[in-house]
Amino acid sequence: MKKVPAAVIRRLPRYHRYLEDLLKNEIFRISSRELSERMGVTASQIRQDLNCFGGFGQQGYGYHVEHLYQQIGSILGVNNENNLIILGAGKLGQALAKYPNFQKSGFHVCAMFDIDPSIVGHTIAGIRVRHSDELEDFLKTHPVRIAVLTLPKHVTNEMAMRCAAGGIKGILNFSYVDLDLPEDIAIENVHLSDSLMTLSYKITRQEQTD
Amino acid sequence: MKKVPAAVIRRLPRYHRYLEDLLKNEIFRISSRELSERMGVTASQIRQDLNCFGGFGQQGYGYHVEHLYQQIGSILGVNNENNLIILGAGKLGQALAKYPNFQKSGFHVCAMFDIDPSIVGHTIAGIRVRHSDELEDFLKTHPVRIAVLTLPKHVTNEMAMRCAAGGIKGILNFSYVDLDLPEDIAIENVHLSDSLMTLSYKITRQEQTD
Repeated sequence: MKKVPAAVIRRLPRYHRYLEDLLKNEIFRISSRELSERMGVTASQIRQDLNCFGGFGQQGYGYHVEHLYQQIGSILGVNNENNLIILGAGKLGQALAKYPNFQKSGFHVCAMFDIDPSIVGHTIAGIRVRHSDELEDFLKTHPVRIAVLTLPKHVTNEMAMRCAAGGIKGILNFSYVDLDLPEDIAIENVHLSDSLMTLSYKITRQEQTD
Repeated sequence: MKKVPAAVIRRLPRYHRYLEDLLKNEIFRISSRELSERMGVTASQIRQDLNCFGGFGQQGYGYHVEHLYQQIGSILGVNNENNLIILGAGKLGQALAKYPNFQKSGFHVCAMFDIDPSIVGHTIAGIRVRHSDELEDFLKTHPVRIAVLTLPKHVTNEMAMRCAAGGIKGILNFSYVDLDLPEDIAIENVHLSDSLMTLSYKITRQEQTD
């Protein structure tokens, strides 16, 4: 498969979400024009994006929703359930453990880890919080590819390294630090303050053009 | 000012963060080569990015850290404190209210709103949770530009409209719904499941190339 532009990849989850909604509403076939109106992007953008994967549309028929949904799910690697662990069971870790859209998108939180004695041993959203010392043993007996990190800055890279050594393949990082990991470990950063700053930029620009 | 590419804008918060760290470590002057080594991007990328804003470097001197930090802060609109409100005081809203990096980046949570009687009236991280009915009155007497939405999907757009009508200029949206708002309202979506899917894609690709 040829290299797909990062911007297209970023749009795939949104396609996946819209196609899921279509299926729920028992819409099994859709033209790129209709899909474009629903999603608020141009029909040519849709055709161009989906062409990156060989294109799944048929002239005069449009897109087969279920097929496209499965294809995009397969590209994203979300057709089978993905187990994940959460490191850091503070407010944010707890919020993520209870976040209904993870489950809906096929991501299943199977364990949480922390070192705080007031949290370790407790159950959050049906998940027991284990001590971080148990991480390696847990990963030996449980096949998990994804770790979500909501940790204090100074321990984040060390814990990420331990995850990688234990077989974790990808890290969703909420800590405000750039991870330094082996190249074969996938990283996706969610820096919430960066999002606020980007928003602040957009507002500032808007005010200047008013 | 000429239009700055979105990709550059997305990188500015990271520059801002690194420059802040430099100032904390009393480093007042830095070459693009040094900065590039710290940030793990090429020196030419740095020069190119900063040139978008007229370029703040001097041949043979490098960058004046404090000046560059102030300039980028001014572009991002974060040199003065920004007040924000949080709509939805569930687990995620509470986590955000306690999120230390918001404060550190100059964002101050001044109010929270919810309709759940078991939460309304309580104080979270020093912030009283008000009933959502009070939103309009609050906005009349408090100058706030930013609203953070952690709401159930079905009420998100309505509440966003009420924010816009009340003078809010930008919305950080955690709800899994695409907002339909007047064009002059800035929107930044944080769809956490999308980030997980993007990560899953990266892992899947990595496994295919192994």
